[in-house]
Amino acid sequence: MPDTRERIIQASADLLRRQGYAATGVKQIVAAAQAPFGSIYHFFPGGKEQLGAEAIRRSGNLYELLIPAVFDPAPDLISAVRAFFDGAAEHLRETDYADACPIATVALEISSTSEPMREACADVFESWIAAGLPRFTAAGLDEAVARELVIAMFCALEGAFVLARATRSTEALKVAGELTAAATERALHSGAKAAVNGPDLPRSDQSFSG
Amino acid sequence: MPDTRERIIQASADLLRRQGYAATGVKQIVAAAQAPFGSIYHFFPGGKEQLGAEAIRRSGNLYELLIPAVFDPAPDLISAVRAFFDGAAEHLRETDYADACPIATVALEISSTSEPMREACADVFESWIAAGLPRFTAAGLDEAVARELVIAMFCALEGAFVLARATRSTEALKVAGELTAAATERALHSGAKAAVNGPDLPRSDQSFSG
Repeated sequence: MPDTRERIIQASADLLRRQGYAATGVKQIVAAAQAPFGSIYHFFPGGKEQLGAEAIRRSGNLYELLIPAVFDPAPDLISAVRAFFDGAAEHLRETDYADACPIATVALEISSTSEPMREACADVFESWIAAGLPRFTAAGLDEAVARELVIAMFCALEGAFVLARATRSTEALKVAGELTAAATERALHSGAKAAVNGPDLPRSDQSFSG
Repeated sequence: MPDTRERIIQASADLLRRQGYAATGVKQIVAAAQAPFGSIYHFFPGGKEQLGAEAIRRSGNLYELLIPAVFDPAPDLISAVRAFFDGAAEHLRETDYADACPIATVALEISSTSEPMREACADVFESWIAAGLPRFTAAGLDEAVARELVIAMFCALEGAFVLARATRSTEALKVAGELTAAATERALHSGAKAAVNGPDLPRSDQSFSG
């Protein structure tokens, strides 16, 4: 069994993912972590806010590992983008629509009220964008276009999670994944220099669509 | 001044938008609504959950009015899509990144715990899709393609709100808006029959890009 501090972080990360920050009480965290009540303030003198920020960063780091895990074995970038959304949809169905993004609920809840937690969420999003970027530039896209596509991918994914959880359907993830794949394909085929709304150029013979 | 029941719904809708469901207490609602404490249970015998569901539906109806307000005066569909995202970005900046989607925070918080509120959120998303659909089909897109684009638009918008609130930047809204506009343009130019990832076809002479 991991040590107490570690169990507290893991339990917090799980509760924040499923129900958000305000609904998660310190009592619930210590119960889930099988930790004594006082241990929270021993390990996290800043209380729930400090613990929350640390749990968000932990979840963010773990989720970031999905990016190399999904993108690097894929035969090409378009397949990787599709696999990223397909994997998210499968996991959502398997968890009865509970496990979507580990930080989005908290990001929406606390962005106007807790600066340390907002910064933790912002840092996590930037770390995901930074992790996605080399996968898109490696396929031949220039950095500005790659950054736009990576940001658009996370927007599409996060928004699809909102709709999918509410409607208990993965239709939004399917549509968002196809749109992102199509935009990526278009950027690759336009010579890796055009913006996502750039001009059409003739396709090369090389297919990126798997 | 609106009557008590109306003030309670408006105050609840505003608090849910800014801080979500769990953080919003009945005491805070009655204070914001300048209503007596007991009036909540008088008007909403199902308590906070019933009130929350009604406030979500109210917010959803109001937000839905933005769709004709933005889309119908626009010179073409692409301009309308851009204006939709630009307006969202402007409003977010003006409210110091507080007023994003009126229901997304709640949708993420309660989808696994409150069936009446989840249904209210799902109904709102479906009503927005239904409101967007005729604006896309009127531009010449067939219904299946139009539905995909409208869902993709709301995914892009919702996800961009998550990133924008956390990072205190409208970059995500700009990128998400351009991606949606480009996908719409592409569907229009491909003869209104292709899916968002469909084949490239020659552009017609008619420009939809405003």
